[in-house]
Amino acid sequence: MPAPAFNALVSRLSPPPVPSVFAWARAYGGARGPLIDLSQAVPGYPPHPDLLAWLGEAAASRVYAGYGPIEGETDLRTAYAAEVAELCGAPVTADNIHITSGCNQAFMAAAMAIAGPGDAVALTDPFYFNQETTLAMMGIERRLLWLDPADGFVPRIDAVREILATGVKALALVSPNNPTGAIYPAGLLREIFEACRKAGAWLILDETYRDFLPEGQRPHDLLSVPGWQDNLILLYSFSKSFCIPGHRLGAVTAGEEAVAQIAKVMDNLQICAPRAPQAAVARAIPALKEWRDANRAEIVRRADTLKDVMAQLPAWKMDSLGAYFAFIRHPFAGTPSAVVAEKLAKEAGVVCIPGAYFGEGQANYLRFAFANADSTTIASLADRLAGFTLD
Amino acid sequence: MPAPAFNALVSRLSPPPVPSVFAWARAYGGARGPLIDLSQAVPGYPPHPDLLAWLGEAAASRVYAGYGPIEGETDLRTAYAAEVAELCGAPVTADNIHITSGCNQAFMAAAMAIAGPGDAVALTDPFYFNQETTLAMMGIERRLLWLDPADGFVPRIDAVREILATGVKALALVSPNNPTGAIYPAGLLREIFEACRKAGAWLILDETYRDFLPEGQRPHDLLSVPGWQDNLILLYSFSKSFCIPGHRLGAVTAGEEAVAQIAKVMDNLQICAPRAPQAAVARAIPALKEWRDANRAEIVRRADTLKDVMAQLPAWKMDSLGAYFAFIRHPFAGTPSAVVAEKLAKEAGVVCIPGAYFGEGQANYLRFAFANADSTTIASLADRLAGFTLD
Ligand SMILES: Cc1ncc(COP(=O)(O)O)c(C=O)c1O
Ligand SMILES: Cc1ncc(COP(=O)(O)O)c(C=O)c1O
Repeated sequence: MPAPAFNALVSRLSPPPVPSVFAWARAYGGARGPLIDLSQAVPGYPPHPDLLAWLGEAAASRVYAGYGPIEGETDLRTAYAAEVAELCGAPVTADNIHITSGCNQAFMAAAMAIAGPGDAVALTDPFYFNQETTLAMMGIERRLLWLDPADGFVPRIDAVREILATGVKALALVSPNNPTGAIYPAGLLREIFEACRKAGAWLILDETYRDFLPEGQRPHDLLSVPGWQDNLILLYSFSKSFCIPGHRLGAVTAGEEAVAQIAKVMDNLQICAPRAPQAAVARAIPALKEWRDANRAEIVRRADTLKDVMAQLPAWKMDSLGAYFAFIRHPFAGTPSAVVAEKLAKEAGVVCIPGAYFGEGQANYLRFAFANADSTTIASLADRLAGFTLD
Repeated sequence: MPAPAFNALVSRLSPPPVPSVFAWARAYGGARGPLIDLSQAVPGYPPHPDLLAWLGEAAASRVYAGYGPIEGETDLRTAYAAEVAELCGAPVTADNIHITSGCNQAFMAAAMAIAGPGDAVALTDPFYFNQETTLAMMGIERRLLWLDPADGFVPRIDAVREILATGVKALALVSPNNPTGAIYPAGLLREIFEACRKAGAWLILDETYRDFLPEGQRPHDLLSVPGWQDNLILLYSFSKSFCIPGHRLGAVTAGEEAVAQIAKVMDNLQICAPRAPQAAVARAIPALKEWRDANRAEIVRRADTLKDVMAQLPAWKMDSLGAYFAFIRHPFAGTPSAVVAEKLAKEAGVVCIPGAYFGEGQANYLRFAFANADSTTIASLADRLAGFTLD
């Protein structure tokens, strides 16, 4: 008999996008100066030394060598619940938290808990690519809500109502957004959530970049809506705020029943998140508040620098700039974004992600993850981009 | 509108089984002496102190704080490939290895890479429960291959051929087995693999307990079959051999094309496995060979002790004893295994897993994870079980 096939839902997916972009970067010869890496959504600075020490301490301990609770370490669930409760002004407790091994996993576990093969889930276009491929590989249909650059890539409530009316099981949003950086106003999120409740749909809100909102801005008041537990799942990542993506930690905030369903998925998917980093981050949440605030301010400075740079480059349109990312319309309309990005990496030493990776209508865009570079480096972009041509 | 439903494939699953068993253990008052915990499949001894030091060192390092390669750290893939190559006498390289966050995740990623909703995968009965629930939540049909206690719970080749003829996409086996402990002979595994190839099906073989085979025994020669890459996926866990389940590490051995498909799943499922433990285990594989061999010998001693104990208890039938587990027919035929196990935990302080958790025909059985207890503790079982009644 011939060799058996792979699952078509998986084999028809493209290879993961980030490694291919790294390959372009490796092909840069250095002609224009040091590589400017705006590809990965990671802060360019290291984790706090205390956090590194706590990570080491916990990992070396016998205590965390054994299996842990599926839902996560009580210390971390409690510390993170307190943070969410304070930030959102709502009575969230440890029972509302499920720790995961990063926010991609949080999305997958949450999506699987609420939608199965044959169900449909709505995403925006542009979307965060792993949300799209996760649904695709699970056989969940995705319906796209097109976002207008003229609206700053923020959804319109009418369009949300329309897509909900098609009978989707859930709407998945990302705010602050990847790839556009757009911050959805708290009032709009409230309207969207009410629309979801009316339509009998779940709202999944990925808040990976929540810590990079402007100082003092409350992300939303969704956790104050009575009965939110029936319709809402919030996702978070410790990767960006604590600079520890390699330790793989994220969190779900949801009603207790949703946490129980997600725990069933998580037991199969990996039993529990790695324990030592959970213990370390439980200490870091209260202890590193000032450090995180300083980073927030630093990222805002980087955004300001990028704004100044882009003002000097009239051919490059910054259609959106937000917490962590800018979504840039390149000057070569009609040329696929992957062609532009590859050449930009190989010849100008500027690495970014092609817009096409984030959706069907995004070929004229590039995503700059500016948080990954310091202000001096960002300033040097002006020269690199000004001199860049396609021939 | 009413609250939206959960995914029925998930909501109809029972809650994860292990926590419910722990609850029975907590209800034991201590009347018969210290708790004897034979529930969890973990070795009762701690990790090697050098490994703990390396785990701490890697976790405290900036190097492993960032995102890593999806397929795993090159060091660990290389070290593990060398171990598999030596053990199986076959030319396995780092390109054949995909590191995962534990072996449950390895199964899920492998199963998803090859089977989708509507496909069927064959499992044995008894099965390892997370394999069964993983297929169920993904909408993959499972077909059961009933194992006869009279055969020591080892599959018959005719029965394998029969179930393959029903058109399953894959057959998933566990050897050494959980829950029975049965070790499938290398020759039988070869026959089964040839049958899979003839039927155009994948063989997924979970070898979590491979390190606990009797000294010097080669698990199988499947990696010597030309073209094995088209049909074979081997799964492994670092949890048991290195006593580090809390750090969540496992591995897939497969053809390069299968590794590439699994990487797409893994990117969505968690981007990469936690990095610091990967660095530490890469050092431990060559360094802790003697320590692992000593543990293997210790587990064999525990099995021998259990054999002696069970010989004194004619009402309790040890229908199978192997690398890590014994599958015990309790004396209360007709009483559900969960009732027996609950009472045994609460009144006799002996914690084990009900047979019913492992399959439909297993209500007369209990799984003893004897590797979790030292020989003295195992010896004290004789008295506990002899005095145990249901009333
Ligand atoms: C919107 C969004 N969600 C989730 C993730 C995944 O983060 P984690 O490292 O926690 O898996 C990312 C990472 O870039 C992201 O941008
Ligand atoms: C047969 C089998 N496979 C997989 C696993 C999961 O192991 P891990 O801790 O690597 O996820 C276990 C754990 O008990 C097991 O018994």
